[in-house]
Order: sequence, then structure tokens, then C-alpha cells
Amino acid sequence: MSTALDASTIDLLAVLAYGELSAFERVASDARLAPSLRDKATLAGIASANYAHFVSLRDHLAAHDVDPEQAMTPFVEALDRFHDSTQPNDWYEGLVKVYVGDGLAKDFYREVSSALPDAATRELILEVLADTAHARYAVARVTAAIAEQPRLGGRLALWGRRLVGEALIQAQRVAVDRDALTELLVEQDLAGVLGLLNRLTDGHTERMAALGLES
Amino acid sequence: MSTALDASTIDLLAVLAYGELSAFERVASDARLAPSLRDKATLAGIASANYAHFVSLRDHLAAHDVDPEQAMTPFVEALDRFHDSTQPNDWYEGLVKVYVGDGLAKDFYREVSSALPDAATRELILEVLADTAHARYAVARVTAAIAEQPRLGGRLALWGRRLVGEALIQAQRVAVDRDALTELLVEQDLAGVLGLLNRLTDGHTERMAALGLES
Repeated sequence: MSTALDASTIDLLAVLAYGELSAFERVASDARLAPSLRDKATLAGIASANYAHFVSLRDHLAAHDVDPEQAMTPFVEALDRFHDSTQPNDWYEGLVKVYVGDGLAKDFYREVSSALPDAATRELILEVLADTAHARYAVARVTAAIAEQPRLGGRLALWGRRLVGEALIQAQRVAVDRDALTELLVEQDLAGVLGLLNRLTDGHTERMAALGLES
Repeated sequence: MSTALDASTIDLLAVLAYGELSAFERVASDARLAPSLRDKATLAGIASANYAHFVSLRDHLAAHDVDPEQAMTPFVEALDRFHDSTQPNDWYEGLVKVYVGDGLAKDFYREVSSALPDAATRELILEVLADTAHARYAVARVTAAIAEQPRLGGRLALWGRRLVGEALIQAQRVAVDRDALTELLVEQDLAGVLGLLNRLTDGHTERMAALGLES
């Protein structure tokens, strides 16, 4: 027997689920930009991992008698807009998006999920967010490319800032519409929210630095 | 300890592997055309299965000391051309491509693989080719759509013929270049090759009929 999920938990699972499904679609499309078969296969692997995460989240919703499609629908537009406004122009922009964009999203979801009442849901989310092998691959490929073409670094640094900007715009859009999701943040006091923002910024700066980029 | 693979076996594994990787990429891109989140998720699942097949085939090559990227390279152009020349214009063309195109390819590979000397390779190929849950989904979706919009049937029937035509053009291109692969066919006598062609045609006609389409 499973406990019923509250509105905040459903929203968080749903936005995560559609996040993984849309990431699958975009990352898989970016595989076309791959300069080698090995790179193409690696990106296909990242996309398949996104799909596997989607399945876990979708099945968790369904197991709690929540219609996954209905739950995801409110988040489709914001996530699609994010991806439409951040379509990589080349292979390296795609890799930076995978690493920096996913990293930021994961830090955010990890923090927010700690407030969820249901332990099984918290565990599932942490499991979905734990995948890091792909981050190492992106860092290795991007830093090697910048070492060969130093001018690439400037362009990718701008790209990293743009990713964060577009993510914030869409996050704000979601926050305005989805009270249940926002409550997960509002339950904290102002100092708590500011602390979260600081930690997100620190994580982003660290990831950009790992790529050899200024944030 | 693993036995060495002969040139025909390597070619067959390699063309299958790149076939799965490129199918992954194209099917995943077609997920954008999905009319609902459920359809999008189903297509993402088909693409992920393609990726899993690719991994099995690639790892089998690597386990026999064959460089998978090098082995796949001769087949990249023909398969990419096939996909470029058969980009679905809508969701239903995409589904017909998954069902009719995959079905034809699988029938061909299943027949050809029976001539392979290595039993483990034969088993692996049959396992990769055995996946059929997706076929049922495509048939159900396409026949339901044609029942609602009868004119769709005429367009999709033409599309099915085009898929076969483009597949034959690219198969011929590969046959000219890859003696090792062609040998798997030439070892049979003429009656054997004609029998194979008949069986492939029969299979195609059956699949088109399952969709309610004339072949």
C-alpha cells in the first residue's frame, strides 16, 4: 500500500519527470552534432539515462494513482521554452548545456526535495539526481577543446551565462503558476531562501571553473 | 576466452550497431512530433531500446578486440542517407517508418545472421531483433488514425513504398562496397537468394496489411 502524495510532491515529481523526458529529446537531437561515433554514442547514453529517470519518476506517480501526463502538462511549456531558447549551436555548447544546465537543475531539485514529507519519494529523487558519470565526460571533452582552441572559452563562458539566465526566466514563470511547488521554498524563511540561492550560485561557479570558464 | 570474428560477422555486427545508433537518433528526434505526452514517452522508449541494442552489439565487437567505431564507419554514410531521404513529415509517417522500416531490416538481418559461424553472435543478433512490443503500439496507433481519417491511408501507403525503395538503394550501395557482407548472401545459390527476396516481400506485405495499407 502506498501513501497519497501531496500537491507539492506531485508537482515536483512531475516537473522532474518532464524535465528528464524533454532532456532526453534534446540531448538525443544534439547527438547529431557529435564529431565522432564515440561522442555520438556517449550522448545517446546520456539521453537514455534521462529516459530511464523519466520512467522511474512516471512510474512512481502512477503507483500513487496520479496520472503522469496530467501532472506533467503544466510544466511542458516552460521546459520547452527553455530548450527552444537554448538550442546549442555546436557540439561544445551542447556539452556545456548538459553539464552546467543539468548541474544547476539538480542542485535546485536536491535542495527542494529535502522538504518533501514522503521518504520513498525523497530517496527516488536523490537516486535520479545522483548520476554523475556524464558530468566527468563533459568536463574532459570541453576542457580539452578549450586547450586546443582558446577562443572557444570566451564563447562558452557567455553561453553558460545565457543558460542560467534562461533557466531563471522559466523557473520564475513556473513559480508564478504553481503555488504548490513554490510552497516547498516559501516554507523556509528568507535567510533559508537566500542561503539556497547562494549555494546554487556557488555550485554554478564551481562547474564553470571545472570547465575552465568564468561564470 | 573469445574466438576471433571473421570479416563477414564483423561487418554484420557493425552495420546492425550503427543501424541501432542511427535509429536511436532519428526516433528520438521524431518524438518531437508526438501528439501527446504519452506518445512522446512511448517513442522515447523505442529509441532507448535502440540504444540498448547498440550497446550490446558494440560491446560484443569490443569483447572480440574489434574497434567498434572503426567497424561502423563504412556504414555511416548509407544509413545516414537512408534516414535523410526518409525524414517523416508527421507523426504517422514516423510510426510507419518505425514499424515497416524496422520490420524489413530485421527480417533481412535475421535471415543473413543464420549463416554466421559464431553461435554466440547469432544468439545476440536474434536477441536484438526479437523486440516486438513497439510494433504492436505502432500498428494500434496507425490503424486507429486511418479509421478516423481514411485519406491518411493513401498517403501512408505511398510512404511505405518509398521507405522500401530508399532502403533498397542504400542496401545496394552497401553491397557494392562490402564484399564481406555480401558473401553472407552469395554463399547461398540463386534459388536461395530469390527465396530470401520473396520472404522479405511477404513480410513487408503482411506489415503493410497489418496497418491497413496496400503495399
